[in-house]
Amino acid sequence: MTRSVYINGNYCAAEDAKISIFDRGLLFADAIYEVAGVIDGRLLDFKSHMQRLDRSLKEMRIPAPLNHDEILAVMRELVRLNSIKEGLVYMQITRGSDGDREFLPSDGIVPTIFMFTQNKASAERKEYVDGIKMVSAPDIRWARRDIKTVGLMGSLFAKWTAKEAGGGEVLMYQDGYVTEGGFTSFYIVKNGLLITRPLSNDILPGCTRQALLTLVAEFDIELDQRLFTVTEAQQADEAFITGASTYVCPVVNIDDSLLSDGKPGPVTRRLQEIYLEHAMRDAI
Amino acid sequence: MTRSVYINGNYCAAEDAKISIFDRGLLFADAIYEVAGVIDGRLLDFKSHMQRLDRSLKEMRIPAPLNHDEILAVMRELVRLNSIKEGLVYMQITRGSDGDREFLPSDGIVPTIFMFTQNKASAERKEYVDGIKMVSAPDIRWARRDIKTVGLMGSLFAKWTAKEAGGGEVLMYQDGYVTEGGFTSFYIVKNGLLITRPLSNDILPGCTRQALLTLVAEFDIELDQRLFTVTEAQQADEAFITGASTYVCPVVNIDDSLLSDGKPGPVTRRLQEIYLEHAMRDAI
Repeated sequence: MTRSVYINGNYCAAEDAKISIFDRGLLFADAIYEVAGVIDGRLLDFKSHMQRLDRSLKEMRIPAPLNHDEILAVMRELVRLNSIKEGLVYMQITRGSDGDREFLPSDGIVPTIFMFTQNKASAERKEYVDGIKMVSAPDIRWARRDIKTVGLMGSLFAKWTAKEAGGGEVLMYQDGYVTEGGFTSFYIVKNGLLITRPLSNDILPGCTRQALLTLVAEFDIELDQRLFTVTEAQQADEAFITGASTYVCPVVNIDDSLLSDGKPGPVTRRLQEIYLEHAMRDAI
Repeated sequence: MTRSVYINGNYCAAEDAKISIFDRGLLFADAIYEVAGVIDGRLLDFKSHMQRLDRSLKEMRIPAPLNHDEILAVMRELVRLNSIKEGLVYMQITRGSDGDREFLPSDGIVPTIFMFTQNKASAERKEYVDGIKMVSAPDIRWARRDIKTVGLMGSLFAKWTAKEAGGGEVLMYQDGYVTEGGFTSFYIVKNGLLITRPLSNDILPGCTRQALLTLVAEFDIELDQRLFTVTEAQQADEAFITGASTYVCPVVNIDDSLLSDGKPGPVTRRLQEIYLEHAMRDAI
């Protein structure tokens, strides 16, 4: 069965969705994206994805091709057309095409927007249940990681390093301190305290991170947003990552050091439950 | 008249050249490119572009979709089809499409390759004759600028900063030292000595740079490859940039400091002649 996707106002089969080779998304990585989780056929943390989208568009000076309601309608239609129960909707907005390649875009350039779905049973994955191994690597990305652009080769190079060392995700560091995962936010737990790096241009403002930190406050879990090293992470009681299609995923091994005896710890398990409960309750 | 372009083995009209939205070049900026200058209907510094291409592909672990002879044949055919006298051929190679979006590519993924031409009378441009103004900005790009990837938003952000301050190109710096232009190599001249930053992961190994430095040695112009600051560049006797479609272009103003009284200096003029002579003689 072929997937239905959306591109510039039209729904079509995945294999028919094409864009010009002159699209600046392709020529300059002049594009941003969002990934919204789908649970029980509904969209997860949608409002916060739209807030981040607006911020990315503003920083990139790309006009919004659709408003939030229109995006919601398209995402819901794609979820319906493709019978997605659990998974995600990927949306990318590029600056568009000027029909040629010049460094600076024309004033009237019209953005390209496309979306597609993926089926993914995140909460049933082996990783979600047993935890993953992370491998550390230098963070070689550009200085504006707070913008969710498609310029992802820095993360991919790091992810390769991790994969070759048997890791499921990379733990990136810069100037001696952990930044985040290759495509996920990262957290440690020490003596009951939840620790994560504060937001800045150095990391992506994760939507799942934002939802989780709100929940953490509601559930009176103590939070410390500060810098920490890879060694400190290795010596933590627990660690985990979050992402739109990852939810809260335990980390049980960092650079071959076991955390909590190689099994997901109690705070991580509790946060998995709390987040999934929020997801089931608040998805729209 | 429509342009003829090349994509994956076929020649077609520019407006018909399209790629899948699942191409990793579009989703992850998982792609590299080359720009070869065309002068007198022939290709400039082709061999050195192919050497850099091979290096980029190797660093990115993308298999070569065409060999050098095949690329040369396509480039020549595009130059012929589009009657390019002076201009450029742009070539991009992406890792290809897996028909979906996963962080790590499948083993058998087939690269996408496309090429198109542009008409550009570089040696007649006002900038080439009168020189340009550069404006400095921090270099916010990733740490592997030696690979010619399409992840170009760092350069574009910097170029915007320069444009808003009335500059024609940005002069990027990092840790207090000049790296290079937004899309060009950068040089200064002081007391007859030609100074440019040595190659490393911090800058692109420019093909025009390589050709020029070979010529400089032949013509007994003294060369010093070392780090220097923006202030040192402002206080230089002369400055210029090079690029595949820029040739040797004079810089007469850096952050509103005039160089050589705001006119292209004698060493720059001589290097413009030397490079154009090489171009006319050695283009294939």
